[in-house]
Amino acid sequence: MLICNALLPGGQVRDVTTDEGRIVALGEPGSLSAPKTDVLDIEGALLAPAFVEGHVHLDKTHFGAELVPHEGAPDVQTRIAVERTLRHKVSRPVEQRARDLILRMLSFGTTRIRSHVDIDSDIKLANVHALLAVREQLRDIVDIQLVAFPQSGIVRDPGVADLMDAALAAGVDLVGGLDPHGIDGDIDGHLDVVFGLAARHGKSIDIHLHDGGAIGAGELRDIAARTKAHGLNDRVTVSHAFSLGMVDELTFGQTAAQLAEAGISIMTSSPPPVPVPPVARLRGYGVNVFAASDNIRDCWSPFGNGDLLDRASIVCQRQEFFANEDIRGAFEMISTAPARALSISPYGIAQGDLSDLVVLDAPSVEEAVINRARRLHVIRRGRLVVKDGEVLI
Amino acid sequence: MLICNALLPGGQVRDVTTDEGRIVALGEPGSLSAPKTDVLDIEGALLAPAFVEGHVHLDKTHFGAELVPHEGAPDVQTRIAVERTLRHKVSRPVEQRARDLILRMLSFGTTRIRSHVDIDSDIKLANVHALLAVREQLRDIVDIQLVAFPQSGIVRDPGVADLMDAALAAGVDLVGGLDPHGIDGDIDGHLDVVFGLAARHGKSIDIHLHDGGAIGAGELRDIAARTKAHGLNDRVTVSHAFSLGMVDELTFGQTAAQLAEAGISIMTSSPPPVPVPPVARLRGYGVNVFAASDNIRDCWSPFGNGDLLDRASIVCQRQEFFANEDIRGAFEMISTAPARALSISPYGIAQGDLSDLVVLDAPSVEEAVINRARRLHVIRRGRLVVKDGEVLI
Repeated sequence: MLICNALLPGGQVRDVTTDEGRIVALGEPGSLSAPKTDVLDIEGALLAPAFVEGHVHLDKTHFGAELVPHEGAPDVQTRIAVERTLRHKVSRPVEQRARDLILRMLSFGTTRIRSHVDIDSDIKLANVHALLAVREQLRDIVDIQLVAFPQSGIVRDPGVADLMDAALAAGVDLVGGLDPHGIDGDIDGHLDVVFGLAARHGKSIDIHLHDGGAIGAGELRDIAARTKAHGLNDRVTVSHAFSLGMVDELTFGQTAAQLAEAGISIMTSSPPPVPVPPVARLRGYGVNVFAASDNIRDCWSPFGNGDLLDRASIVCQRQEFFANEDIRGAFEMISTAPARALSISPYGIAQGDLSDLVVLDAPSVEEAVINRARRLHVIRRGRLVVKDGEVLI
Repeated sequence: MLICNALLPGGQVRDVTTDEGRIVALGEPGSLSAPKTDVLDIEGALLAPAFVEGHVHLDKTHFGAELVPHEGAPDVQTRIAVERTLRHKVSRPVEQRARDLILRMLSFGTTRIRSHVDIDSDIKLANVHALLAVREQLRDIVDIQLVAFPQSGIVRDPGVADLMDAALAAGVDLVGGLDPHGIDGDIDGHLDVVFGLAARHGKSIDIHLHDGGAIGAGELRDIAARTKAHGLNDRVTVSHAFSLGMVDELTFGQTAAQLAEAGISIMTSSPPPVPVPPVARLRGYGVNVFAASDNIRDCWSPFGNGDLLDRASIVCQRQEFFANEDIRGAFEMISTAPARALSISPYGIAQGDLSDLVVLDAPSVEEAVINRARRLHVIRRGRLVVKDGEVLI
């Protein structure tokens, strides 16, 4: 494929060629040899790495279904209980909702997705099988990683460890976890199962951690220690990590340094009302921090749309990223940073990088974030999958 | 004008007629007499009161101009100083930027706007004259109230009181104010000028109040007491009022009760990183609270777009308004609540109400907020000013 007259994030205008899923060459406009087919002249539009959705719940979304009135809940435990009731009342099948949302996300410029999938003693592996089927159905246009997510806990929900084991054997890619203290009340018991399953199946890990304050920060250090002990550097993600927005300077510094040393990635959707990880300070310690959609129109929130430029804008406003450099950092948080967390490599816009690309109607990366720029085209593995905003399927 | 097959916010489908800027009748589809001209069949789309922008800075915006790199500032005083330098570097004239932003806001469904306009010893009345000219130019399609806003203070910036006096004589509608303690360091001196000018010109008041904690809450009570003493009930707005998100329960309750008694409206744009007024609790005390855009692509923030549905969505996520009733409350915060603050009355979708209306591609008010629904048509004083998303000018 030859992409002509592309404005790169650095400001240069280049022609770009791709082959076998990689960027082969970048050169001055008109300088590269043009194959007969697959020439795309983007006329100075911005060409950037396609977005990577590092944390979403494709099985929870009510996307495409009628609005389910939100029910309040005072804590995470109650929210989980509410969801276990409500999810049986959504008539549209999980497969259809997930599929439609994925196509919407693709139209927004996202070609790679990591989705958690609920596993508990009630729903068992139903959602796992649903998402495995959707992944197979859409394998030609999008890459999907699935995380075995114990939404009701492991220790307190009997049989979940075995179900997670079965899910991993069936093709699920990562081991999930959830609030070892807050949900299971047994930090070591929970982490024994998570790291044990990862070792047995040779998988990476992605843990939800809402636990706050000193307890949450302590769990982060426990996870960092186990990560190093298991040789899982650069293969563990912790999502939310609200505690990093609550603890004192000394605790923060010690925890951040250990996260960096273990190569643990932190995901923040930066929800406005709660304390969130201070992104700039974490990056200062060398921690890889990325942003993601998390809940989209589900029992946790009726809001969310799967647009990662929208998320970058939310992160900027939550973290006070107003300077150009900071806004560019937010753009990295939805592209190269989640790629690193998801072990998608090499990722960027240089020779040899994977050729997942998005074409944006914007004069710069900053303007793309500020204006949530229109997505013109999306290229996945060197093939056009969205043209003029329409998914080619 | 006859609007056919309108879905009303309450869920009924009705035909609606308007005349001389008012809603004349609502009836079952087909039941009202149809004049030969101006029939608009909206085929079940949502018909709602047009949006009211109660707090924007039309003279500050760089809308339509190149992005001015944001410069950090540790406090409000420094931010003001930075702005006084940067504003001379934007080559596009204030009139053009303001005009283009107003037309964009109109396309988003906003037909009435209250804009602050900077007055200080440097810029004097230049921006006042610019916005008065723009208002005159666009008087056939939009209503604009202007506030004489002392962005650099009154007491500490010599001559500003006289400039504000001249602005009010020249056609500016309201007296503004700014952090009597934080900027002027003279609460009584500042409020003497503000309430004095209001009395002399027979005008309403709209004060910016960033001052936090007990000091800010004390100023709110001072403003409430002066409002009652001057007989200005329902004619005073305080914008931001961050202190209401910082003080103890007792102070909050006493302050909220006094605000309600004086009929003071509170504006919150609910910026994510700072403590903001707790909207639900304030409403519980009977305080009129509305949401607005505030800064749009200016020296204070490069973000913002003038879309009040976007703002309602931000407020919902900041204030955890996820239940249907709360989301409908957020919709009121961009329509009927600012109308009340701006003394635009009677406002709503009942017989006799002003016929400023917006047609939304949404099956309910909740879905309109959640999905930032497409604006189809906008009606101002019973006349179509936006058709199929295009401003008719």
